[in-house]
Amino acid sequence: MKPLVGIIMGSKSDWETLQPAADTLQRLGIAFETRVVSAHRTPDLLFEYAEKARERGLEVIIAGAGGAAHLPGMTAAKTSLPVLGVPVQSKMLSGIDSLLSIVQMPAGIPVGTLAIGQAGATNAALFAASILANKYEPVRTALDKFRADQTATVLANPDPSITSVSRP
Amino acid sequence: MKPLVGIIMGSKSDWETLQPAADTLQRLGIAFETRVVSAHRTPDLLFEYAEKARERGLEVIIAGAGGAAHLPGMTAAKTSLPVLGVPVQSKMLSGIDSLLSIVQMPAGIPVGTLAIGQAGATNAALFAASILANKYEPVRTALDKFRADQTATVLANPDPSITSVSRP
Amino acid sequence: MKPLVGIIMGSKSDWETLQPAADTLQRLGIAFETRVVSAHRTPDLLFEYAEKARERGLEVIIAGAGGAAHLPGMTAAKTSLPVLGVPVQSKMLSGIDSLLSIVQMPAGIPVGTLAIGQAGATNAALFAASILANKYEPVRTALDKFRADQTATVLANPDPSITSVSRP
Amino acid sequence: MKPLVGIIMGSKSDWETLQPAADTLQRLGIAFETRVVSAHRTPDLLFEYAEKARERGLEVIIAGAGGAAHLPGMTAAKTSLPVLGVPVQSKMLSGIDSLLSIVQMPAGIPVGTLAIGQAGATNAALFAASILANKYEPVRTALDKFRADQTATVLANPDPSITSVSRP
Amino acid sequence: MKPLVGIIMGSKSDWETLQPAADTLQRLGIAFETRVVSAHRTPDLLFEYAEKARERGLEVIIAGAGGAAHLPGMTAAKTSLPVLGVPVQSKMLSGIDSLLSIVQMPAGIPVGTLAIGQAGATNAALFAASILANKYEPVRTALDKFRADQTATVLANPDPSITSVSRP
Amino acid sequence: MKPLVGIIMGSKSDWETLQPAADTLQRLGIAFETRVVSAHRTPDLLFEYAEKARERGLEVIIAGAGGAAHLPGMTAAKTSLPVLGVPVQSKMLSGIDSLLSIVQMPAGIPVGTLAIGQAGATNAALFAASILANKYEPVRTALDKFRADQTATVLANPDPSITSVSRP
Amino acid sequence: MKPLVGIIMGSKSDWETLQPAADTLQRLGIAFETRVVSAHRTPDLLFEYAEKARERGLEVIIAGAGGAAHLPGMTAAKTSLPVLGVPVQSKMLSGIDSLLSIVQMPAGIPVGTLAIGQAGATNAALFAASILANKYEPVRTALDKFRADQTATVLANPDPSITSVSRP
Amino acid sequence: MKPLVGIIMGSKSDWETLQPAADTLQRLGIAFETRVVSAHRTPDLLFEYAEKARERGLEVIIAGAGGAAHLPGMTAAKTSLPVLGVPVQSKMLSGIDSLLSIVQMPAGIPVGTLAIGQAGATNAALFAASILANKYEPVRTALDKFRADQTATVLANPDPSITSVSRP
Repeated sequence: MKPLVGIIMGSKSDWETLQPAADTLQRLGIAFETRVVSAHRTPDLLFEYAEKARERGLEVIIAGAGGAAHLPGMTAAKTSLPVLGVPVQSKMLSGIDSLLSIVQMPAGIPVGTLAIGQAGATNAALFAASILANKYEPVRTALDKFRADQTATVLANPDPSITSVSRP
Repeated sequence: MKPLVGIIMGSKSDWETLQPAADTLQRLGIAFETRVVSAHRTPDLLFEYAEKARERGLEVIIAGAGGAAHLPGMTAAKTSLPVLGVPVQSKMLSGIDSLLSIVQMPAGIPVGTLAIGQAGATNAALFAASILANKYEPVRTALDKFRADQTATVLANPDPSITSVSRP
Repeated sequence: MKPLVGIIMGSKSDWETLQPAADTLQRLGIAFETRVVSAHRTPDLLFEYAEKARERGLEVIIAGAGGAAHLPGMTAAKTSLPVLGVPVQSKMLSGIDSLLSIVQMPAGIPVGTLAIGQAGATNAALFAASILANKYEPVRTALDKFRADQTATVLANPDPSITSVSRP
Repeated sequence: MKPLVGIIMGSKSDWETLQPAADTLQRLGIAFETRVVSAHRTPDLLFEYAEKARERGLEVIIAGAGGAAHLPGMTAAKTSLPVLGVPVQSKMLSGIDSLLSIVQMPAGIPVGTLAIGQAGATNAALFAASILANKYEPVRTALDKFRADQTATVLANPDPSITSVSRP
Repeated sequence: MKPLVGIIMGSKSDWETLQPAADTLQRLGIAFETRVVSAHRTPDLLFEYAEKARERGLEVIIAGAGGAAHLPGMTAAKTSLPVLGVPVQSKMLSGIDSLLSIVQMPAGIPVGTLAIGQAGATNAALFAASILANKYEPVRTALDKFRADQTATVLANPDPSITSVSRP
Repeated sequence: MKPLVGIIMGSKSDWETLQPAADTLQRLGIAFETRVVSAHRTPDLLFEYAEKARERGLEVIIAGAGGAAHLPGMTAAKTSLPVLGVPVQSKMLSGIDSLLSIVQMPAGIPVGTLAIGQAGATNAALFAASILANKYEPVRTALDKFRADQTATVLANPDPSITSVSRP
Repeated sequence: MKPLVGIIMGSKSDWETLQPAADTLQRLGIAFETRVVSAHRTPDLLFEYAEKARERGLEVIIAGAGGAAHLPGMTAAKTSLPVLGVPVQSKMLSGIDSLLSIVQMPAGIPVGTLAIGQAGATNAALFAASILANKYEPVRTALDKFRADQTATVLANPDPSITSVSRP
Repeated sequence: MKPLVGIIMGSKSDWETLQPAADTLQRLGIAFETRVVSAHRTPDLLFEYAEKARERGLEVIIAGAGGAAHLPGMTAAKTSLPVLGVPVQSKMLSGIDSLLSIVQMPAGIPVGTLAIGQAGATNAALFAASILANKYEPVRTALDKFRADQTATVLANPDPSITSVSRP
């Protein structure tokens, strides 16, 4: 199955943050690919990847990066596909630098930005699904089931004091 | 023409920020509607709007709000359509509160967040177009033309010192 | 004894932060209930809970949530009972996002906001007691005793260097 | 009519911020008093005011202050009445200093904190009303009418583009 | 020997932060006392302590507190002795709340503020010494020796790579 | 009369911020001098000024600077006199950069830091007075009168709504 | 004379910020060129500009950009010439987003970052001069004269109260 | 081989942060020296070091410091050599204080600032190399090889999920 979503990240170490995006897409039955593409260390690869994304059949790109995070914005500069940005938690500033570097794009080139860290990665996958759901009925069915299950899980355990689980 | 994009905002005063979203959609030939829907003052209306959005034919919702901005996230909680959040500049904290209230959604319910203020509104429209472009060929054509024009405008005026125009 | 205070939270994992609220209410002899209600994953439950709170006999609601924390504000949008917000420490931004998402409510719908984390939870319970104390004499007596004890504890140990205990 | 709410502020210049609290209480028909009480310049007056507040019949205190804002917290230290804090916008730091100085109270002495500036002042009055509404039926009626009117106003003007009014 | 410096703190748990102030005064041969005085839990004690400080012979007060830190400012409101504020690292916000609550005093009542945490405590002691040095020759001698030793220590170990010691 | 206090600043443009320090010292009858000394543009002058300050009879130095404000800390590095730092509001970051550059001194060299801007300048003068008051009886008398007058002014105008004056 | 320094900026509107860089280079007699190059709207031009910079004879590049400022970092990714970044003040966040987007580069690709705004632009020119001064004697002479003049200007006007000029 | 680059730091404890600068210079074959020079504890040494740097043959200075970090700026005040600043992570504020203290230099004296922490140290070395590369062919060759290797390393491991290594 040809991938519809490309998950790219600036460094192998970002995989820890981005993996929930891959896991969520898998659970929703959406084909995807993952690739390390560094805006700073492999700028030509980034341009090539972004330029060919649409013709390779990708419909959404999820780009995660940390610090002075230029990967999502530069990808968006080279393709008109929807680009979702996941700010990776930075060692020093907790990802506030990553967030601002991704979300504060000037008018003209948009990046749809999600929360810092793994929650943002999961949500990037869900947002990609919401985009694809407009076009692909099975994705919409899978997404709506995911959300119904999610609601049911909360409703099934109304008492907070019985078991406390750590929030991702 | 039935609207594909719904632009909602928490207050009439947010229109100043959101108007560029409407202008950009118009320029791209994408049908849209605009509506004041306050998460805090008209919560029932918000729920009804979000619940019926898909069946009314909307494919993307752009939600702008300021301060403790709950409109985008609560809309996303009631629909699986893609919801784009535009943080409105707040009087006291320049919109950093609006931004964090919109972007830091927990895993499970995503909001694709754009920049604070008018740049974010313009980009929300462009992002909506990029979503629709996957499904509607004319939108893709219009979007690619918009971006080509934008590039051409920069290239046509390479010398910064001739006339200085204020950036939106 | 019918609960006068409802403690709600967006996720089971928030219980660790909210538990001191429950403990403090118990110590003051104030009946309460605890419930997981997620603004984002169970929005309908939230609306129902808030709408029926007054007729079920609740007089104060304590709502704790983290990140883009919408639970306190949306609860306040659906009831005119006093709603107290406890910002839960977020993994990435230490709860500054939670705080701004809760406290920066626009004019019209108030949330009485306490400190980030467990100190805020304890204080939400004490603030609930101060509200109830205006109407219920025994609560006032219990609250004044709590505060007198608290003062006495400090006065009894004036020398900081003897034993150092960690502040909650 | 004996005042039920005391509105105090650290400086005459804070009146500009606090006035909406007075206006809102007046609209709701709740008796109140206003007073300049400076934690730093008139500490003894502050202690006396707080100590005698309950016996003078006050049931809620609204305290506004800016910068290193100690008025709300010190008032709360001297009375077990509910104390609501309104962070006044500071000249240099937009009120983020005022907010943190008020909301980050240690466990033991709570201040119910509202938004920075006039929105916070309006909401302090509404929150005071919600406290009083638990005990005084007419306040509850007035508060519910206020909120119904507020909802109706939004619903009556659904189109943002007709006239744009500046948000307070 | 009658104490010239009073070290007060809002909680026993602040002793860990303030201890370097005591150690440094001891090394400089300056008599001091230490006392837990909570602005919020023992406001009357705080007022009494500050009011009597000068007549008891104190010439400088070092006050450490965290979060919504009111101890230094309220002490300064009740005495015209020089009051030095040490922001204690707060659990959630790393002490930025403590710092702003202490340093942003309005015109009229000053607090000389030092760095957040133990470095600030050490420096409060050195600053107290610099105040006393204007009046007491032996303090000046001790302070100048302290600083000369400190300079000598750095000069004696010019090569950073030999042994790396953790900075306090 | 030989100056006891030296007011130095990094630039002529800082005079607008520092002038209240001079005015307040004048009102208290304390002799002072004012001087432009730039840490960055006249480093040698700064060293000479600081080194000779004590022998020239100065007992306190007030140093104001903005942005990457090095003047107070470098002055303190070259004298054991008490050095008070006034963060000047910076054009871009409102003085938060000035504040952190001044207050976050490492252990060993203290700067007693006041609030950002004119309030901090006034308070630097009052703090200088509190230092001098320990040694010079007339300063103490003048300082206590200043503070009594300040309290009386607040008490004389208890009603905030009569005339509203802008706070400095 | 072939330009040694290239001044590029993301938008014509950035010229207001960057102009002092041009003025300063001119004053120092260093040949330069100015060009609008947008990382987001003209990414291919940016790559071409950076790739050919060295062979065209440039020895330093000064890149100014605002918001999610990717221009300096992406230029540095495509050339091993020294790239200096000037954060342009952003409309909403005063340039803190610009600063973090430029300075927080990951290990491997450096950008030498200057202060936000015009001060940073002037300093970028001076820093470029300091780089060129290592190789070109006349630049070093001009730079040393510039700095001597700057020092002399401060020394010539030691009294801040005579005329107050606004700092750039 | 005479050192071309001087690496100085405010404290031995900063070595942990600065060591990657030394390692990177070594890998590039650039001679350097390392030295502890404290702006606050050894100001005279700092002045002497900076003043003699050029005549001793240094062409670039890398200065690392934390908190109220004055070392880079004061070094730049005493030499017209290019000075690179590395903000050391501070214990309390994660280095945001260090960053602002270094980067926000007023017009006239520039410091080329790198990222907070070890990434900044590595990049300071690479930036020093880019400066030297303009003059010394072997440095340029080494730098270009370093960057080519760096690109090759990323390209050789395109799949993020195989092994995840922690980013420095």
